Amino acid sequence: MPKVQTRPHGEEPTKSASRTMAPSSAPSLETRPVGAPQGEVRRVTHRAATAAFGWDGVEQRPYKDDERALYKTITRQVLFSDPEMAGELRYFEVAPGGFSTLERHEHMHGVLILRGRGHCLVGNDVKQLDTRDLVTVPPMTWHQFRATTDEPLGFLCMVNAERDKPQLPTPDDVARLRQNPAIAAFLDGKPRA
Amino acid sequence: MPKVQTRPHGEEPTKSASRTMAPSSAPSLETRPVGAPQGEVRRVTHRAATAAFGWDGVEQRPYKDDERALYKTITRQVLFSDPEMAGELRYFEVAPGGFSTLERHEHMHGVLILRGRGHCLVGNDVKQLDTRDLVTVPPMTWHQFRATTDEPLGFLCMVNAERDKPQLPTPDDVARLRQNPAIAAFLDGKPRA
Repeated sequence: MPKVQTRPHGEEPTKSASRTMAPSSAPSLETRPVGAPQGEVRRVTHRAATAAFGWDGVEQRPYKDDERALYKTITRQVLFSDPEMAGELRYFEVAPGGFSTLERHEHMHGVLILRGRGHCLVGNDVKQLDTRDLVTVPPMTWHQFRATTDEPLGFLCMVNAERDKPQLPTPDDVARLRQNPAIAAFLDGKPRA
Repeated sequence: MPKVQTRPHGEEPTKSASRTMAPSSAPSLETRPVGAPQGEVRRVTHRAATAAFGWDGVEQRPYKDDERALYKTITRQVLFSDPEMAGELRYFEVAPGGFSTLERHEHMHGVLILRGRGHCLVGNDVKQLDTRDLVTVPPMTWHQFRATTDEPLGFLCMVNAERDKPQLPTPDDVARLRQNPAIAAFLDGKPRA
């Protein structure tokens, strides 16, 4: 079991102080079953974009900075989440020097860079990212996004509404990843390219 | 049954010359069942954005201009579609003066304007759209997007991978919509706002 205490991106803070690995086949209880019984759904057909990559009526959720955590300075906005939609679209923004949680899970990510530039790790590949680039995170693949310039890195992320909880790396997993010098440099916030 | 021959956006051209209404409860045969048996899935983890809102390895699919059609000058690119993903993300781009098909269906659209400005009709509402605005199209709601400036209107559209076929309006439907002067002006390509 991992000892690292953190919160994977895309999840609400949990009530318990620590997070442990969930069986990858179990859908997360924090996610929304598609077509679940519901009260009246209130849908807003148009949400105007605001300055600085916000949207009318969409809450910008900060992640607390925590010395124990493997994420840093990210906000999250849920753009589309509906009982009739099998996917969800979220917008994450990472401040300069910040990064998302290093994690993996059965569900996939479809990512489009909406703002700025940065780097990501997907599996064994470190990639430089520019605005509008696409990133596919396959199932059970370690991944992390980093804002490696002096601008925020903002990205859209499509996920299944029903999805498993992210798994965090053990110290052994991290050691194994760090055997690749390019990955080690990325994890140290100094990607080579 | 509608007499208009057209192709709803987000669909491949059909083999028959005319399109008729599909029962709204029947999933489209043209869509991809989630988790369906498959050969080996080849996933590209990074696709660089190219100039003019294209992406490496993503085919830009033109729609033929057709005098009978209710769409005009749209291209479509499928950004994310995978057997493990319950949603799909597509990018549509409408040239100045162009428009998407006026249609409705059980499945929903989650839209983010990625490029330019324009207008949309959703139900009884005509909305002016700016870059990064969000549009939610609820089930069985007439909708259309129009590029009403001298720039292209480009938008991301999230849909369920399994979805019903769009329905086209009958002449009666159009007449009913046109009773609203704001909608009539929109359909004539001259939105008021």
